[in-house]
Amino acid sequence: MFEQLKHSAYEANMELWRKKLVLYTWGNVSQADRAHGIFAIKPSGVPYETLKASDMVIVSLETGKRVEGDLNPSSDTPTHYELYKAFENINGITHTHSTYATAWAQSGKELLCLGTTHADYIRGSVPLTRYLTDEETEAAYEANTASVIIEAFNGKNPLHTPAVLVRGHGPFTFGKDAASSVYNAVVLEEVAKMAYLSFSINPQANKLPQYIQDKHFLRKHGPNAYYGQLKR
Amino acid sequence: MFEQLKHSAYEANMELWRKKLVLYTWGNVSQADRAHGIFAIKPSGVPYETLKASDMVIVSLETGKRVEGDLNPSSDTPTHYELYKAFENINGITHTHSTYATAWAQSGKELLCLGTTHADYIRGSVPLTRYLTDEETEAAYEANTASVIIEAFNGKNPLHTPAVLVRGHGPFTFGKDAASSVYNAVVLEEVAKMAYLSFSINPQANKLPQYIQDKHFLRKHGPNAYYGQLKR
Amino acid sequence: MFEQLKHSAYEANMELWRKKLVLYTWGNVSQADRAHGIFAIKPSGVPYETLKASDMVIVSLETGKRVEGDLNPSSDTPTHYELYKAFENINGITHTHSTYATAWAQSGKELLCLGTTHADYIRGSVPLTRYLTDEETEAAYEANTASVIIEAFNGKNPLHTPAVLVRGHGPFTFGKDAASSVYNAVVLEEVAKMAYLSFSINPQANKLPQYIQDKHFLRKHGPNAYYGQLKR
Amino acid sequence: MFEQLKHSAYEANMELWRKKLVLYTWGNVSQADRAHGIFAIKPSGVPYETLKASDMVIVSLETGKRVEGDLNPSSDTPTHYELYKAFENINGITHTHSTYATAWAQSGKELLCLGTTHADYIRGSVPLTRYLTDEETEAAYEANTASVIIEAFNGKNPLHTPAVLVRGHGPFTFGKDAASSVYNAVVLEEVAKMAYLSFSINPQANKLPQYIQDKHFLRKHGPNAYYGQLKR
Repeated sequence: MFEQLKHSAYEANMELWRKKLVLYTWGNVSQADRAHGIFAIKPSGVPYETLKASDMVIVSLETGKRVEGDLNPSSDTPTHYELYKAFENINGITHTHSTYATAWAQSGKELLCLGTTHADYIRGSVPLTRYLTDEETEAAYEANTASVIIEAFNGKNPLHTPAVLVRGHGPFTFGKDAASSVYNAVVLEEVAKMAYLSFSINPQANKLPQYIQDKHFLRKHGPNAYYGQLKR
Repeated sequence: MFEQLKHSAYEANMELWRKKLVLYTWGNVSQADRAHGIFAIKPSGVPYETLKASDMVIVSLETGKRVEGDLNPSSDTPTHYELYKAFENINGITHTHSTYATAWAQSGKELLCLGTTHADYIRGSVPLTRYLTDEETEAAYEANTASVIIEAFNGKNPLHTPAVLVRGHGPFTFGKDAASSVYNAVVLEEVAKMAYLSFSINPQANKLPQYIQDKHFLRKHGPNAYYGQLKR
Repeated sequence: MFEQLKHSAYEANMELWRKKLVLYTWGNVSQADRAHGIFAIKPSGVPYETLKASDMVIVSLETGKRVEGDLNPSSDTPTHYELYKAFENINGITHTHSTYATAWAQSGKELLCLGTTHADYIRGSVPLTRYLTDEETEAAYEANTASVIIEAFNGKNPLHTPAVLVRGHGPFTFGKDAASSVYNAVVLEEVAKMAYLSFSINPQANKLPQYIQDKHFLRKHGPNAYYGQLKR
Repeated sequence: MFEQLKHSAYEANMELWRKKLVLYTWGNVSQADRAHGIFAIKPSGVPYETLKASDMVIVSLETGKRVEGDLNPSSDTPTHYELYKAFENINGITHTHSTYATAWAQSGKELLCLGTTHADYIRGSVPLTRYLTDEETEAAYEANTASVIIEAFNGKNPLHTPAVLVRGHGPFTFGKDAASSVYNAVVLEEVAKMAYLSFSINPQANKLPQYIQDKHFLRKHGPNAYYGQLKR
């Protein structure tokens, strides 16, 4: 069952691997089907080289428990589950340890919007969480990873700012489906690399003026977008 | 119609992709045909994997409007159009978000000529524009992107200094045709990487002496050039 | 004889090459067979392009001398030999000059645990040896390279902290077999790159809190591990 | 004529390209045949994609002039010619604009020996030339490039220190033949990258102690070398 959903989640996981954002098994992508109250996610620790669409694990959006599949779901499943509950407009989540985004997460510095590459896809700075406390870590580490993400968003729209850095850990990205969350993971990694280089060249590099940030985001998103070929 | 021009623009766009200077659809190349008063440019948002020569859009050098093609031209078409009008000796324009060149554009620092790799192709520093104002951004963002480029050139010859960095955005490069503007985009990216590294090693790195800059540029360009196999 | 052991050592050496951690012949992997009192190691200076399983050299864990094979074993064989004697729970050793790990070894700075990528595989900082003295270098350079490694471990478990940086030289990594020591060499290189970038972004980057380090290591290792598909 | 020499020079040029040390036509390799008083060198500006062994140009070691071949030799031919005359024990020369080595050449900082990777192949720091003067540049730029190299060597053995950085330009490397000069170009690029990273991590990184530098060089070179499989 849920062949199409599994296929979409599988394809997005493989695209993450083809884009070289994962080393070994260090990443996972899920896609939600709100109508059926489920999401499909990568199984834990299975190498991409041998991954199959039928390996995808189906998890309930109500209970967070596996409802189909022989394999254990990603150990990060409770994070995905809590995020789908909190962010009702997203249907895709990607988690990676991609190099530059993770370096920013480890640095404890905010990833500012320095240019139009960033502004085209992500409104404002990339939210950066605090560390989990000792109690949060012990009690429910993966669920509380979602909690600090939600706290860092502070009401921001996760489709307009579809990326977050978990301090000392790495990035999560969001989308309307699994594929677009992977796309945003690729964008984030490139934007993180560019910002790293820009600050290395000039530690006082300026944020892109807000009106240019707005212009670029709205060229690509919303009712007045005029980028690409889609009829709107 | 304009098969040859479309083919040249198409091949240059694909070369940009083969040289790994574009991620997803983040780049566009055009080629002008002055005799026919037109240029061919990549359609907006079409992936390189499926791009065809017949997808190229023909735009009038008089009106800036599409005169042939079913697809929307690149959203940066007004920038190309204004640049062709202002810089009459160029017939190729490439725009990318290549990593190191964009990092310099975001840094707000001038990309100086530190070595012969730079001097072989680009005379002097790479011009760096100011940010567009709020008014310029609102009124005609893409056309005014050309305006700040032209302002930054301040009369310099765009075939002798065939690259510019739009502050907070990224590079444009020029050439006698589309292919040579792509070549210069590749050169700029490599030169930007080398300069980044040189300044990381030594923040007080010196500009190459002017007489060596001149020597190298003139080894490859102009009536006394002696590099390569071409009869002159 | 020892076909299986040679095959395992050979495959691990080739995996090191496929992961692009070696340039030319700059690396070697060995695997021990404690029951037979031997280990298999790459021959010295043989290119990976032409390496065969039958080229692996069998060395005695008692004498450190070659007991089978026509080729000279790696010039680093005495280092492997002394490490197998001192660290009785490891059965795989990998030595490389991988770029980022070697850069840390050359820098003389301690590679701290900044994030969960590191904590998933390596407990605490990566040990960093002192330089060998003039006398140690002259007397028995390769054996004394093991001595400074053992000194730097200072009783730490080499399967829990399966990596070390030899000052001014490069990394050695450990595992329960050759393959897992190669896996750890790949992890170390990525972790070294991330830490390099994090400190470039913020020279005051913090260590990951100890309780998160513990949580991540124990998610993947020990009796309560819950990552992956293995029954435990 | 000189088929074998042309073939060796051709193969070394192609190896430089396969190792990704050249962009477009930015490199050249030559090999000398002292008995016949000639060297074979890459033609100027010919792309590697279409280069053939028969394109190699034969130049006299007496006059520096072309003695066979239809194509113009590399514009750097006078540099090779003067270096072969001054350094009688080398028979291979490689010139590149490889990224990290060129960045060091542009930085004006000395590339010190920080680790054993460097010490295995290059004794001591990599010599760094001064800039050519205006007069030297005008009078005979390529020949005087050799002059500043020879001046920077100051009597050092170019087979023991087989690399040099021309300030503001890039590296030249040497060998007993063309292939070994290419090997040293690859080594230099990696060593330059490692040193760049090490100094970024720790601006006060120390030189490798001299006795370890000596040990490593002599493990691989000279009558007491014990690396590899060669009988000595």
